[in-house]
This record gives sequence, C-alpha cells and structure tokens, in this order.
Amino acid sequence: MLIVMQKDASGDQIAAVNEKIVALGLTAHAIPGAQRVAIGITGNQSGLLEPGLFSCLGGVQDVIRVSQPYKLVSREVKPDDTVIEVGGVKIGGGHFCVMAGPCSVESRDQVMRTAMHVREHGAHMLRGGAYKPRTSPYEFQGLKLEGLKLLAEAREKTGMPIITEVKDTATLAQVAEYADVLQIGARNMQNFSLLEALGELKKPVMLKRGPSATVREWLMAAEYIVARGNYQVILCERGIRTFETLTRNTLDLGILPILREMTHLPIVVDPSHGTGRVTAVTPMARAAAATHVDGIMVEVHPDPKTALSDGPQALTFPMFETLMREIRPIVKGGGQHFA
Amino acid sequence: MLIVMQKDASGDQIAAVNEKIVALGLTAHAIPGAQRVAIGITGNQSGLLEPGLFSCLGGVQDVIRVSQPYKLVSREVKPDDTVIEVGGVKIGGGHFCVMAGPCSVESRDQVMRTAMHVREHGAHMLRGGAYKPRTSPYEFQGLKLEGLKLLAEAREKTGMPIITEVKDTATLAQVAEYADVLQIGARNMQNFSLLEALGELKKPVMLKRGPSATVREWLMAAEYIVARGNYQVILCERGIRTFETLTRNTLDLGILPILREMTHLPIVVDPSHGTGRVTAVTPMARAAAATHVDGIMVEVHPDPKTALSDGPQALTFPMFETLMREIRPIVKGGGQHFA
Amino acid sequence: MLIVMQKDASGDQIAAVNEKIVALGLTAHAIPGAQRVAIGITGNQSGLLEPGLFSCLGGVQDVIRVSQPYKLVSREVKPDDTVIEVGGVKIGGGHFCVMAGPCSVESRDQVMRTAMHVREHGAHMLRGGAYKPRTSPYEFQGLKLEGLKLLAEAREKTGMPIITEVKDTATLAQVAEYADVLQIGARNMQNFSLLEALGELKKPVMLKRGPSATVREWLMAAEYIVARGNYQVILCERGIRTFETLTRNTLDLGILPILREMTHLPIVVDPSHGTGRVTAVTPMARAAAATHVDGIMVEVHPDPKTALSDGPQALTFPMFETLMREIRPIVKGGGQHFA
Amino acid sequence: MLIVMQKDASGDQIAAVNEKIVALGLTAHAIPGAQRVAIGITGNQSGLLEPGLFSCLGGVQDVIRVSQPYKLVSREVKPDDTVIEVGGVKIGGGHFCVMAGPCSVESRDQVMRTAMHVREHGAHMLRGGAYKPRTSPYEFQGLKLEGLKLLAEAREKTGMPIITEVKDTATLAQVAEYADVLQIGARNMQNFSLLEALGELKKPVMLKRGPSATVREWLMAAEYIVARGNYQVILCERGIRTFETLTRNTLDLGILPILREMTHLPIVVDPSHGTGRVTAVTPMARAAAATHVDGIMVEVHPDPKTALSDGPQALTFPMFETLMREIRPIVKGGGQHFA
Repeated sequence: MLIVMQKDASGDQIAAVNEKIVALGLTAHAIPGAQRVAIGITGNQSGLLEPGLFSCLGGVQDVIRVSQPYKLVSREVKPDDTVIEVGGVKIGGGHFCVMAGPCSVESRDQVMRTAMHVREHGAHMLRGGAYKPRTSPYEFQGLKLEGLKLLAEAREKTGMPIITEVKDTATLAQVAEYADVLQIGARNMQNFSLLEALGELKKPVMLKRGPSATVREWLMAAEYIVARGNYQVILCERGIRTFETLTRNTLDLGILPILREMTHLPIVVDPSHGTGRVTAVTPMARAAAATHVDGIMVEVHPDPKTALSDGPQALTFPMFETLMREIRPIVKGGGQHFA
Repeated sequence: MLIVMQKDASGDQIAAVNEKIVALGLTAHAIPGAQRVAIGITGNQSGLLEPGLFSCLGGVQDVIRVSQPYKLVSREVKPDDTVIEVGGVKIGGGHFCVMAGPCSVESRDQVMRTAMHVREHGAHMLRGGAYKPRTSPYEFQGLKLEGLKLLAEAREKTGMPIITEVKDTATLAQVAEYADVLQIGARNMQNFSLLEALGELKKPVMLKRGPSATVREWLMAAEYIVARGNYQVILCERGIRTFETLTRNTLDLGILPILREMTHLPIVVDPSHGTGRVTAVTPMARAAAATHVDGIMVEVHPDPKTALSDGPQALTFPMFETLMREIRPIVKGGGQHFA
Repeated sequence: MLIVMQKDASGDQIAAVNEKIVALGLTAHAIPGAQRVAIGITGNQSGLLEPGLFSCLGGVQDVIRVSQPYKLVSREVKPDDTVIEVGGVKIGGGHFCVMAGPCSVESRDQVMRTAMHVREHGAHMLRGGAYKPRTSPYEFQGLKLEGLKLLAEAREKTGMPIITEVKDTATLAQVAEYADVLQIGARNMQNFSLLEALGELKKPVMLKRGPSATVREWLMAAEYIVARGNYQVILCERGIRTFETLTRNTLDLGILPILREMTHLPIVVDPSHGTGRVTAVTPMARAAAATHVDGIMVEVHPDPKTALSDGPQALTFPMFETLMREIRPIVKGGGQHFA
Repeated sequence: MLIVMQKDASGDQIAAVNEKIVALGLTAHAIPGAQRVAIGITGNQSGLLEPGLFSCLGGVQDVIRVSQPYKLVSREVKPDDTVIEVGGVKIGGGHFCVMAGPCSVESRDQVMRTAMHVREHGAHMLRGGAYKPRTSPYEFQGLKLEGLKLLAEAREKTGMPIITEVKDTATLAQVAEYADVLQIGARNMQNFSLLEALGELKKPVMLKRGPSATVREWLMAAEYIVARGNYQVILCERGIRTFETLTRNTLDLGILPILREMTHLPIVVDPSHGTGRVTAVTPMARAAAATHVDGIMVEVHPDPKTALSDGPQALTFPMFETLMREIRPIVKGGGQHFA
C-alpha cells in the first residue's frame, strides 16, 4: 500500500502517518519524490489493510493499493525515474553512462592503461573485477584486495568512479571501502543474504539479471535491496541462457521497453557478457543505446589474447574508440544526455 | 567444394568444369559474383573429392574445401553480399528495406488504408497475410485467394511490391502468382518439401527463423532452397522461444553480427512477432536498425483492438510514423541506403 | 460446447440435435463413448452460444461449456481413454505397446533382421523411416518407396503392423497405402495442411511433440486432426529443446501425468530421440514405463556404427533384449497389459 | 593429474608422493578407494606437468592425466561409487534413500506428525526447511533457529537423520550444529563462497542443480566442495527452467544415466520441485527410481492447502503411502537395496 501525501504536508503530518504504520506492526518506507512525499507500506501479509485507516489522517492525499509483489521498485509506487549520482556521474532520468574496463584487474600496467584509454574516449566509470566468481575452482579468482587498490589508484588518476563485483558478505565491507558502485553478478542475483546486506549499505548497487531469471524475479531481487532502505539500485541486463550456443548468452533487449514501464530504476546493458563474442559487442552496444537504456557496460583489454578471463569478448582499444564514436549519435538522437 | 574461376575464364573453360562435375555424379552450382565466376559442388557424400581433379583444368584459379554443412549460403563460398531486387526495391548490400502492413488481410478498406499510410511514411514493401497458419483450428485462417487479390490491388494502387506467407505446397502456385516475395513462416522453417518447391521457383523467398532453431539449422534450411537453384533468399529473425514470458518471443539480436559473417544473404528483423508487445516494437525496430541489418518487417493496423490476429503487437498509424522518423537517422548513421 | 445424450437417446433425437447445430452454422462432432453418445460443437467463434438452445431438445441429458481451446481431444469432452487398435495391437486404455526398429530403412537385410529380432523379444509394432526429413539437404533422405515396400515385406514376415513417417502431403497417399500408423515428425507438428489432410484419412496417426511446443500447442495440433474427423491420434513425447546439450533433447516426462488428465488420447514416449545417447535410452524407457504411459518407441539397429542416420542413439540387438526384460515388470507392476 | 599407488604401497611411499606434489607448488588430494590409495593433483594451471616426475617414485603404479575440468568428482579419478553414511542411513553404491518431510517447518505439531508418518511408511531421512530463501522479500522466510530445534526434536523422536537447507555462510555454523546433511538450494549452486565454506566442513552436503546449470557447471560446483577436502557430496536433480510452464520446472531425468558415468557421487531426484504439481510427484518418483538413482526427496504436509510454502506440490499423508508402495518394487527390481 502506498500513502501519497499532499504537496504541502507538514513534517508532523508525515510523522503521524509513519507512527500509525508502525503501530499496525508494519514497515514504513519514505519514497523520495520531486513533488511530494509518499510512504510505502510493506509487511502486510494478510492483504487486508483498510485504506480508510490512512485516508482520514491529515495531509494524506491518496491511498493506493499496489498490485505487484515488487512494490518499492515499481513505477506504480514511484512514477518518476530514479537518478543515481556517483562521483559526479549521473545514471538514469536521461543520463547515459558508459562503464568500461577489463573483466579482471590483472596488473597495475593493464588497469592504468585501460583506464586512461577509456577515459580519454569518453567512458564515465571504470569497471574491473577484483573478486572473480569462476565456474571452476581451478580458474583465476582475481587479485582481490590488491585488485581493489589498483582500481582505487586508477580512480585517483582518471577521476572516474569505479564499479566492481562483490561476491559475498565476508568481503562486502572491504569491497565497499574501495568501490563507488557495488556490482552483484548474475549468479548471485538470488543470493538473498548478500542482497539484504547491500540493502543496509548506503552505496549504489548494480544488480545483474540471473541467466534464467524472469523479469519479475529480477525485480523481486531488487526489492530485497530497496526494502532494506537502499534505493540506489541499477539493473543490468546481461543475457539469458537459451538453447542457442552461437553466443554465450542471448541478450534480451526486447524486455527493456516493458521493464522501463514496470520500474523507475535505471537500466544498463552489458553486451560483453550478453554475447561473449567480440564481433557482436559493438553492434549490441549500438542496439542497446537505440532502445534508450541508461547506459552500457563493456569489457576492454589492452591485449585480449592474453586476458586471464573472458578474452573472447573483450574489446581492443581501437574497437572501444569505434564503439564510442558509433553510439554517441544514437544516444543523442534518442534525446538522452551523454556527457 | 568450391571452384573459383579466373577473372578472364572463358565460357568453354567454365563449361568444361561443369562437365567434369556432372561426370563425377555430382551437382554444379554457378555462384554469381561481381568479379568472377565460382562453381559450388554439392552431392559429395563421401567427402573424398580430390582438389587436383579440378585445379588442373584451364581457367581454374582456386579449389577450396568448404568446411560448413551449409555451403552455398556461406560467405566462404560467396564473399560479397547478395542483393535482392524486387519491384524496384533493393534489399541487402547496404540497402535498407521496411516491410509493413497488417498481420492478416481482413478487408479492402483495411488493407488499402494501411498500404496508403505506410507507403506515405516511407515503407518499401507491403506485408499482409492471406493464408494464416494458426495454432488452433478454430481461429481465423485468412481470406485466402480473396486476400491475395486485395494485396495485388494494393500493389497496383501504391506501387509497393507485396510479401505474403505461403503455408503449403498446395497453394504455392496460387500465392506465387500474386506475391512478389514469398514468406515462409517460423513453423514451416523445416518444412523441407515446401523449401524444395521454393527452390525450384525463381521468386525471392523470406525465410523466418523457427522458434527453436539454431542459426546453423536456419542456414541449412536456407541451403535447401538455394541448393535447388533459387539464390534469392532473405533471412528473417523473429524471436526464439525461451523461459521468459513477458514477451511473446525473445528477439535474438545478438546473433546478427555473427550471422552476417557466416552468410551473404540479406537479413531482416521482425520486432512485431519478436516481442508480441506493441510497447516494444518501435524500440526493437530501432535496435535492429542499429545492428545494421538489411531491413525490418512490422505489423500495422488501422485499429489494432479489432484485429482478427495479433492485435496486441500491431502498431497504430501514428506509431508507425514515429517508428519511421526514429529509425531513419539510425539507418543513415550506419552508412546504409534508406530510400 | 458439448451435448451429452441420455443413454437411451434414439437415433432420431440425435439427428435432431445435429440438425439444430448445422442450422446454427456450426459443426457437429459425434464423440464415441462406451455408455452414451455425446456431440461436440465447434465453429462457435462468438462464444455466445446458449445452452438452452439444446437442453430443451428430446434425449439431451446435459449441455456442457468446454473451457479449453482444444476441445475434442480433451477429457472434458470425452472422459474415457481412447484405445487405438491396429493389426491386432492395442494402444491406450491400459494396453502398453512397444514400437521398435531402425531409424531409417537402409536395406532388406537390415530391416528384416531387425524386425525379426524385435518381434522375437516382444515388440508389438515395427518402426522404420522411408521418407526422412533431414536438417541438411545433403544428408541421406531415405529409400522412399523402396523403403515402404521393405517395411511391408517385414510386416508380412513378422505379422507386426508398421509405423513410418509421412513428411508431406505429396507423398501422403503413397505412405498411407503401406503404413498402418502414420507418424508426424516433431518438425511437422504445426504443418497444419498436413494435419488437415491426416484428419480426412481414416488411419491412426502418431503426432510427435515439436521441440519447442508447449503441451497446449501440441494438443491444438492434435485437435486439427480430430476436428476433421480422424479420432485415432497417438501423442508421442520425444524431448524438447533446452539449454542443456549433454543430451540431444530434454525428455519431458514431468508433463505426462498432467497431459493424461488433459486428454483421452494414448501417449507414448520416444527415449531414442528424447536423449540421443544410447546410454540413456534404456533407463529412460524404464522411466517412461514407470510413469504409466501407453507405450514407447525405440530405435534398434544391427550395427549402429554403420547406421545412415541417428547411429549414436540406436540400441544394439542385445541392448534391446535388456530393455524388454527390464521394462516388463515395471509395466505390469503399474497394472498395465503388456502382451 | 592422478597418481594411482600400488595396492601394497607403504605409508612412506605415499608421503613421498605428497611431498613432491607440495614441493611443486601444487595441492595433493588423497582419494579414498576400496582397493588402493590414489592421489589427485590440483592447482596445475599450466597444464605442463610431466608424468615422469611421479612414475619414477616408489610405490606408484600409474600416472593418469585427467581430461575434465571437474577432476576429483569424476569417475576417471575415482571409479567406484561414493557411499555416504549418515546416522545409519547409506546413500549411493546401491543403497536407495527416501528423504521426506515438509517444505518449511511450520510448527511442532506439523513437523512431528509428518516425521512420524513418513518414518512409519519407510522414509530414511527427514527433510524440512528452517531457513527458506524466497523469491520475494515479503514471503515467509522460515522459523530459523526455532525450526532447526524442531527438526532436532523430530530426529530424536524418530531416529531419522535430518537434512535442511543452509542459505548463507552467516548461519552455516548454526545449521551445521543441527543438520545431519546440509542442503544447498538451486539458487545457491554457484554461491562459491558458501561452497568453499562447506568444503572445509566434515559434513555431508546435498547440492541441488541450478535451474539453468549445465551438468558440467553442476559438477564444477561440486568440485568446489570436494577440492577443499569434503568428499561427502550428494547431487540432487530438481528440474531446469525451460519454455514449458505447465510444470514449475522440467525434471531432467535424461541426463542421469550419463551423469552416473561422469561422476562417482550419489545422485538423488526431487520430483516435488522438479514438477511443482502434486499430480506429477508420485509418477516422477517412480520414474526416477526406474533410472536407478540413489534416492528421492519429496515434500509431504499434513494439510497442503494451509502450507506456508509450496503447497501445490506437497503430498498428503495417503499420497506418500502410495508413493512408497509403488516405488519399492521398482527400486528392488533395479537391484538396489531399499531398507
């Protein structure tokens, strides 16, 4: 249930609504809005809450039943786009963001060269894996703390905020100390304990869609984070698993316009994991931009043949330049802001 | 195996190669090329054909083993793009084509109004179903011959060539009499008898990808047509079946750049069937254009709510105008010709 | 809509109901029942048919609205199992049937030896492909008419009825002349023109599930046949296409108990195509029997290594003996009749 | 790489092999075998290890290169079945185990009644969820510690060991204190930090297959546990996500005979989650037994309509009795031991 307050509702009136919610054993969520305050209610398992309990209170304009199981992330509850700002970079609400960098941080030289290159050609945020969840226990698992420090060094040098994956609660505090945006990998999309811990944090989170997650399940996973009070969630489409093996995953662009109607959260696309084939990355980055998403995330490596992970999908430096040159007019043509 | 002739090979030399192929019990396929003639060989089940049998003949420049099971449709055999021309409209090789019209032809008024509208706003070809394969035997199956006649009337009035589905060999001759391009629906992609019959015809064919067909299987289905001598095949991606039910199908744009490398045939995208949701059609048309395909096919209806088939995915007239306005700069930005 | 007649309804009363249906522009289908006659009505596109139109007629016991789009194949319309009898072999209603033989008929020796062997070890019906739809146009397409004749010869020698695939309407009459049961392959499940032609025939049909067909679509495809008057349809589960590539298809046994509730048609399972791996065929035959289906279809070859098609999934003669020995107690334990 | 020692190799000889492995910077894994000791080597990222380094040592019989990325769980490395024994119950190597109980522990009465009933009718182990990962943050998440205590009470009363899900590392120690077997849910199959923590424990683990995991990925996930020294891993097939929505998941029985050849670990099947439809549970339990797996896990509830989770797939008490009566002859007919 959602309580929409009048534009000129007083602080006392808002407090009175919150008290009533708490008194009923439920949880109140203040929903930030440009025009007015709204208060979401969760915890109502019976489904029998009476609108009249709230509509009689002072300053209340409207009481709305929310029909979706994902509540706080839905447009029903918050109609205007969420814009996330981190280190001077905006994502969402018409601001397009390019996140680029290596799959794994491998060395100072590799991460610095890549960061300088992508910055120079217009990237807004640096990506790079320090903790790498890998299918096999015998594969390279990342440089860990050393990798985080190299990313921080690259941030200092280039001014770009950094996004890196957090793979478990044990390393969350450490990763959060260095990262500007915390990435949740596809395989952790329904790692609910990790999602809850992220909900307690006040840091932006980028939640990748699981390889077999429906859009509903993805939104519910985001709801886990938001329900704990962290509203800064970015959704990232990175391909789903289908019968087709020509590409590593099937990038599901078709859901994006519908997802846009369902949620106010920013949406980005990862064409690198979404296809796993370097040939397809730039065309899919263009395609994603043409659907008017809020950004892309791509893998770039100085020498993909020697990459310790995901070499076949990493762009070379010249390829990244081409990508940036080609998506810019598409993004601008769509009326989005591309700094 | 592929025999590449020298640029200045004489007609006699070409004939000699053909004779040798026939003498070995195999089939020769002349491959049209801008620069030189090439001759594909099929029917070699043993796989033991000796290149030396041909390299010694006059005028032969090169003898190439073709590694793919799809031979004649592969870039290995014919490196330059196939361009299909029909009624003054070109598809492929940099020519972008918009096919638009109703899912089913329902009445003279409906098809004429739609044809006039899409023509006015830049469509190149008129689509419309006269024979409709339907999941249930109790659903509307199309106006059949009457529908074909209405399409022909619309062609006369607008000058646009028409594309319509042929659903079986029994009606093939009739449909071929009216249609400029014969469409094979997704469920008939592996109707091999129908494909063979189309191979005997000298009319362009648009082959839709089956809902669970891999790219390899799709190319093999095209090979069925080409192996019988009809090189005018257009491939149409229209979504695959996955676990996600938010959209009717999952439009698989990620394979397109790779498919482009695999085959010389023109490729178009159908965002209407590919998503089944009107909200997603225009964004996916833009996305398809951004991948540099050779065209799109979309469903347009004067009043989607009353459509006898596929109403939820049909664009209204104003929506089609928006689509055309939005894809034009993307197509042109990609260096393609958009008449 | 379904009109259930009283047990003692007279021929005149039944005729009166039929006449009323026809007078309304609809189609009447007599539904064979052990106890009483029922009459299904199709063609009612408006959905507004009034039960009262029929309940007032003499001899009418009940008028039932049928909620499913598949009507005549549903249990709602015909509660008791359909039993199909062919050449002395019964399928359905507690009668378990083993169909065995080579994927393709390759030679007299191969088909005769296989037929004798499977007959000796308890098979009830001989399978064998004469017309083979193949993914590539360059693969072996079957012995065609010669193959049909060899199957007929094997029938004469062993007494077993034969089941073979019909791949198009052009060869339907020829195949129907030789076959006892006409098999529709998975890729033709929605070849509606072929289904309609089979509906006109009075021969049992075995309809394989398409690789990406939902159970609903499969039942609708069966409805195409039954709606034309041919009630002798057997459904065959043969695996669906999923992301898992360890097996050729994913045999979907989990739907069978639910399918059983939805339809009165006999159901068989093909573990050969359903797994594509000889190791898995016998275990899946046992598993299928344990779900209480009405039969299995398996591929057997004297020398799988030399098979012209599907060698990796064909059982050797000793493997077939093991299979028969192992499924017999499971079938009998399930209370089914296994001749 | 795998070092197979001679039957009569001395402790010193084994120690010498271990020392050499450690000296090379690699990890040695003693592989328990009925006849002889074998030592697996992991950590060899270069792939250039020379067999001669070990074959020259005393007591070494054979040095085998292991070709699969999953090493310690493969049959190549350990040909004989792993048998897991817990609280007097054996799983694997011919011992069939029935795990039954409620989806969630809801109350003392519910869990005690269920435990008594399933015990009485032949179940070997009690299942029940105390920590429940749920798709929505607003759903019932289990009784947690209170649930674990109720399970322990039921164990005391019935003598059955208990299996329950552990959802994160934070609660692992607590769950491990009460549980006899730790279950890893499908959504946590690639929660590598949790897998590693389980590898350090000396408790049996049941690892469910992820909804979109290939068999290879599943075995790699098991390898994460085994590589840390915990060899007591049971694999549980519980259905994969496909396009078919008639069942909640598609139970993938077809892979089981192949999986059996790939790994020595015990394999069980969960037909409750695998179908999500109570109608299908008992038939799929029979089918699983007919494939000769090592056990099944089923959900039973005194009153499924009131269940707080997964009611539509829970068996009633009489249904469980039927299931047990029906699978017993199938298990015994397959030559397995069913206590």
